[in-house]
Amino acid sequence: MKVHGKPMRTLWVEADGWSVGIIDQTHLPHALVTLRLTTLDEAAHAIRSMQVRGAPLIGAVAAYGVCLGLRGDASDGALERTCALLQETRPTAVNLRWALDEMRRTLRPLAPGQRVAVAYQRAAAIADEDVAINRAIGAHGLGLIASAWERKGRQGRVNVLTHCNAGWLATVDWGTALSPIYQAHDSGIAVHVWVDETRPRNQGASLTAWELGQHGVPHTVIVDNMGGHLMQHGQVDLCIVGTDRTTARGDVANKIGTYLKALAAKDNGVPFYVALPSPTIDWTLEDGVRDIPIEQRDGREVTDVSGRLPSGEVVTVRVTPEGSAVANYGFDVTPARLVTALVTERGVCAASTEGLLSLFPERRPVRETGT
Amino acid sequence: MKVHGKPMRTLWVEADGWSVGIIDQTHLPHALVTLRLTTLDEAAHAIRSMQVRGAPLIGAVAAYGVCLGLRGDASDGALERTCALLQETRPTAVNLRWALDEMRRTLRPLAPGQRVAVAYQRAAAIADEDVAINRAIGAHGLGLIASAWERKGRQGRVNVLTHCNAGWLATVDWGTALSPIYQAHDSGIAVHVWVDETRPRNQGASLTAWELGQHGVPHTVIVDNMGGHLMQHGQVDLCIVGTDRTTARGDVANKIGTYLKALAAKDNGVPFYVALPSPTIDWTLEDGVRDIPIEQRDGREVTDVSGRLPSGEVVTVRVTPEGSAVANYGFDVTPARLVTALVTERGVCAASTEGLLSLFPERRPVRETGT
Repeated sequence: MKVHGKPMRTLWVEADGWSVGIIDQTHLPHALVTLRLTTLDEAAHAIRSMQVRGAPLIGAVAAYGVCLGLRGDASDGALERTCALLQETRPTAVNLRWALDEMRRTLRPLAPGQRVAVAYQRAAAIADEDVAINRAIGAHGLGLIASAWERKGRQGRVNVLTHCNAGWLATVDWGTALSPIYQAHDSGIAVHVWVDETRPRNQGASLTAWELGQHGVPHTVIVDNMGGHLMQHGQVDLCIVGTDRTTARGDVANKIGTYLKALAAKDNGVPFYVALPSPTIDWTLEDGVRDIPIEQRDGREVTDVSGRLPSGEVVTVRVTPEGSAVANYGFDVTPARLVTALVTERGVCAASTEGLLSLFPERRPVRETGT
Repeated sequence: MKVHGKPMRTLWVEADGWSVGIIDQTHLPHALVTLRLTTLDEAAHAIRSMQVRGAPLIGAVAAYGVCLGLRGDASDGALERTCALLQETRPTAVNLRWALDEMRRTLRPLAPGQRVAVAYQRAAAIADEDVAINRAIGAHGLGLIASAWERKGRQGRVNVLTHCNAGWLATVDWGTALSPIYQAHDSGIAVHVWVDETRPRNQGASLTAWELGQHGVPHTVIVDNMGGHLMQHGQVDLCIVGTDRTTARGDVANKIGTYLKALAAKDNGVPFYVALPSPTIDWTLEDGVRDIPIEQRDGREVTDVSGRLPSGEVVTVRVTPEGSAVANYGFDVTPARLVTALVTERGVCAASTEGLLSLFPERRPVRETGT
């Protein structure tokens, strides 16, 4: 999407033809800093330290991480070690595993001498597939926003609430949850976004607000506590969030706090949509609350907040008392019963086994024939 | 409650017999700073700038503010001007109005020369009544925690989630929502508190965590987004929060985000209790969502976060991008249907008109007799 009026992606191959450019998102919203990754370790560090984040972008960066990892040694052992190291950077990210499996599946049958060139081709394809998927999610989700706009008689504005950052910064381009919003905005619908700040890492306040502002989409940042009140007072027409992992029956694991917004939406009759690229569907899981392991993250994310001093310097301040314990679960699971619909690259469906299978019939279990 | 091992209140008359000591709560949790109020304007400033906050404490400080305001001029006009000025500091605070009405009702019939001495007596009584009310709330709420402890077979710990600060720092002593917790802890029940940080002002992270820590109560600070996940996983036995304003049918207006926690509690079968001194009941209102006006506060509370640098200096940092709008509603309303019970100084009752009238029968409308 646009930055300073010009199109940009989150990930690109540099002019040298092999090193990989990224936006170091830890500096947003205060500065736009780009980095050049030249080694496997730099790619792994970028994922682990959340210089890049968001399930689809992590997958694409990991694919390029494999390319960087094989440049010196493209043996079978190096391929396995490279994928294992990248897998460990974010153990719960489903697309990360998917992207690494794709790379391994593509490269393993090849002679080591062929692998690097093909790795770059496959990584580029994974990045381009992500863009195409997100564009399609946006096209399908646009219909939901357009319907809300029609219901309001094209008066005022369509108010969309979102949580965390499922925008283009979380993907290669377009985003998942924000893709319908960008397409609505670009097509002339008066859309306004309530942006949850999304503690503890404030990805809403820092990333979603920044990217919406850069693209010119009207938005208002709110604390995570505020969405329920807005919904009680008719100030939210629909919610759209992303998901890191979706079960086969439509439960969604997304950034901590998503579940609370889904409860408020249900209580107030506000549609709650979840946008997802199909690689985030984990077809092996059903009950997300029971079966999705939730990553505990560094407690300093809770005790500390980063921001900009009036001088322009970005610093980290402590907000809790010395000696107080903290807990920091990164995600929660929103049960399918609270989700109005899932928005995928193939279309919109009910958050249910049947809904998902209607869009992905190839996943329907093959029935055994009787004897 | 205890600070550095010694009992302390939030408000006291200094040794000079007339000036008023307070804790300047804006410095917590990083430093314990006390202030001496000597004028009406200083008292009004203390309330307006949230050096003191919490409905019951605001009422008591306002009562002492009347004392300070009348010291130079105790005429009828001065009494009216003093009360009007204090009322405007926090227009939506019900106890503030109640305390000022009490002072006016007590002082107006007296000769100006008698007013100052009586004002100090009445202010002291208001402060002591608050302590007595909160001690009684704690005694009644203790039973709810003790029952949870028995249900767990006195094994492990009773996990209580609270939002914002309804502790002794919000009152003269004991607190409302935290009073049952202090009494449970002091009576040997293994109680542990999940403390919502409570953006935007972080009163949970800064005040509740500090006062629980000072008194020795085990607690864990969490971001506001996390409570739903904990409830889904059986890690919360009950919730207790305070309220700024309660309607005659039991709807409660409390710090923004309370409603979201009540929804999660309902969804997971976790009891959700609201502790309140009866002066916070507004018997003239029924439908809280419709009829309680919600104060919009300064947007800088959302854009900025205060905390301590590693050097010890306390600074304010900006977390949102330049140019992004913010909204900042201070409270939300939790409908009575989500509240398991109300805990008052007279006992525990259902969050309903009948429940409240069972404890406050003097409020039952007098039925007109037929002709």
